[in-house]
Amino acid sequence: MADPSAAAGSPAKVVDIHTHMYPPSYVDILTSRSTIPLVRTFPSSPDPRLILLEAEVPSLSGADASAKPPGRPLTKHYSSLAQKIHFMDTHHIDISVISLANPWLDFLEPSEAGGFAKSVNEEFSTMCAAHPGRLFFFGTLPLTAPLSVIQDAIKHLTTLKYCRGVILGTSGLGKGLDDPSLLPIFTALADAALTIFLHPHYGLPNEVWGPRASEEYGHVLPLALGFPMETTIAVARMYLAGVFDAVPSLQMILAHSGGTLPFLAGRIESCVLHDGHLVREGKVHAKRRTVWDVLRSQVYLDAVIYSEVGLKSAIEASGGAERLMFGTDHPFFPPLGSDEDGEWESVGTNADAVRKALGDGSKEAAGVMGENAVRVLKLYGE
Amino acid sequence: MADPSAAAGSPAKVVDIHTHMYPPSYVDILTSRSTIPLVRTFPSSPDPRLILLEAEVPSLSGADASAKPPGRPLTKHYSSLAQKIHFMDTHHIDISVISLANPWLDFLEPSEAGGFAKSVNEEFSTMCAAHPGRLFFFGTLPLTAPLSVIQDAIKHLTTLKYCRGVILGTSGLGKGLDDPSLLPIFTALADAALTIFLHPHYGLPNEVWGPRASEEYGHVLPLALGFPMETTIAVARMYLAGVFDAVPSLQMILAHSGGTLPFLAGRIESCVLHDGHLVREGKVHAKRRTVWDVLRSQVYLDAVIYSEVGLKSAIEASGGAERLMFGTDHPFFPPLGSDEDGEWESVGTNADAVRKALGDGSKEAAGVMGENAVRVLKLYGE
Repeated sequence: MADPSAAAGSPAKVVDIHTHMYPPSYVDILTSRSTIPLVRTFPSSPDPRLILLEAEVPSLSGADASAKPPGRPLTKHYSSLAQKIHFMDTHHIDISVISLANPWLDFLEPSEAGGFAKSVNEEFSTMCAAHPGRLFFFGTLPLTAPLSVIQDAIKHLTTLKYCRGVILGTSGLGKGLDDPSLLPIFTALADAALTIFLHPHYGLPNEVWGPRASEEYGHVLPLALGFPMETTIAVARMYLAGVFDAVPSLQMILAHSGGTLPFLAGRIESCVLHDGHLVREGKVHAKRRTVWDVLRSQVYLDAVIYSEVGLKSAIEASGGAERLMFGTDHPFFPPLGSDEDGEWESVGTNADAVRKALGDGSKEAAGVMGENAVRVLKLYGE
Repeated sequence: MADPSAAAGSPAKVVDIHTHMYPPSYVDILTSRSTIPLVRTFPSSPDPRLILLEAEVPSLSGADASAKPPGRPLTKHYSSLAQKIHFMDTHHIDISVISLANPWLDFLEPSEAGGFAKSVNEEFSTMCAAHPGRLFFFGTLPLTAPLSVIQDAIKHLTTLKYCRGVILGTSGLGKGLDDPSLLPIFTALADAALTIFLHPHYGLPNEVWGPRASEEYGHVLPLALGFPMETTIAVARMYLAGVFDAVPSLQMILAHSGGTLPFLAGRIESCVLHDGHLVREGKVHAKRRTVWDVLRSQVYLDAVIYSEVGLKSAIEASGGAERLMFGTDHPFFPPLGSDEDGEWESVGTNADAVRKALGDGSKEAAGVMGENAVRVLKLYGE
């Protein structure tokens, strides 16, 4: 497998900005649940199974759930900090910006969300403090709680030394990220210089995958297509609602190289310019910021796209490689049939794409592999 | 606006492979209907309105339907052959491969679909014969009719001199294009050397656009995102069902540069390789054809992507420019606020993208602008 640090060239740092954990307290919550997200054991699976997606529900109650256990094995890679550090060492990653994995606290009761957010953010803070300089984190917001509780959580995050932003799903307060009620939260995050890491979870409604998907195509459609399409829809809704104009200092990193935004940006622009309603209502005018403007000023993209073709498109849509940041998506997509303690093919594919797109050892490649993240997220101090 | 022929360089032909018509007989059917697709008049709109999309239904019955009439104006561009030829002349297009626009015959009763398919295909044939050498067409299949009727329709198409394939939606026989019942149809099309032009219509379920979309964002989300995502899902389902392996001579053109397939191909590949179920069931093996293989052997892409960024990605995913074909999407996306009889910005945007991506006057640009279509679809003879 490829060594990510080779693309960066010493002494540039290699930084993983897309890397998740479920701390043990979170796993306890999942284990106590009877609806997704949940953790359940099956006789045929050595590890407990983590079941996250709506698309996995049909096989959860299916007759062959024991033969084909749903979800994915919940290995030590999900909750062990030692395993995270081992993974970083194995892949020559200097710094990881860890975040709670989906679906975060989206399913918590309003009354419990604030307290759990505080404790999980402190738990992440403590993990970072145990490896100073090697770990930073994106915090989690209690989005089901009242606005004042969410704002208190943002204030709390500003007191945590290793926090650099928040990971955010596409549901927001339950009505999507174009919900005007979110504007005070976006403003508070921007004012606190906390970057939003926008990450999918909900995918698309099951019906779009058709009758054969859940039995025959594994998780491919919801993960490969549903996730990036969800991200694209979320950010397009924010764009059309004028969120980027309303909060000009808002700064976001989009998971999976923007979903499909780089490829579809031209079509979005053209559809805006040709929309009778938008034009008649004066929403299309010369000073309007285009999707390209947003891609080149407020949005960063991770480099988790698994191909040189996609990565080059993401770089070009962003106006240059300085807006791209390497990530691994660990602990998801472990190697099948080889040692999970060794090198992961999914990591190598993304590192190889950087090398191929930007040239082995180039300054641009070093930027994507880590230096961009160090600069944008200020990953220094101790 | 750009002159498409400039990119091709004389005497290379400029060919538009993505260009639709609703012949008058089809407009009559739409006018008689009370559910979508339908044509209706509103006092505030000089032209009748064409209402096609599920996303347009909320505003159809809304209180302000008369102030903001739903759908789009059904101008003479939709049904007049003279207007099509005028449009071609205005944009220096030598040859158009015309096709019925969505949703084709998908909504017809099984008993009427066969007869109407025959008459609409003959109508297209007659239009082409009126302008020999300038017009070819993709036929329409009566997909709601019994299999034998569909097969008879394919046989009929092979007798029509100017027919070069069929336009196909993503619904198939009602269960998507990964439906095993479609295999005899795909085989019959491949045996008849009829190319499938895969085109979206159904988009995604309305709920994904959120509560603000129908009132505030015009048609942008369903058209800009729903359409290309639908195409991507349809072709990914075909790939996972093994359709391209089962019918190796099947040849398809994907609308809108493949939807998002070029950008997501790497992620699809990675998700297949990392899927526990697929790997355990032996569906992932060394001789398996990858998504890239399919993109580079059985699939062609139109160049209707409205940006150089997207087009370059489509070209690279396809292994070269010889699999791309220019299109206009006429009569959709007319210019707003300028003369529809003049040059259309939407056409210029796509022609400019070809020039920028491949170099003005280059052989590759001439290929995309027309010569690829002439070669692949055999647009000659008379």
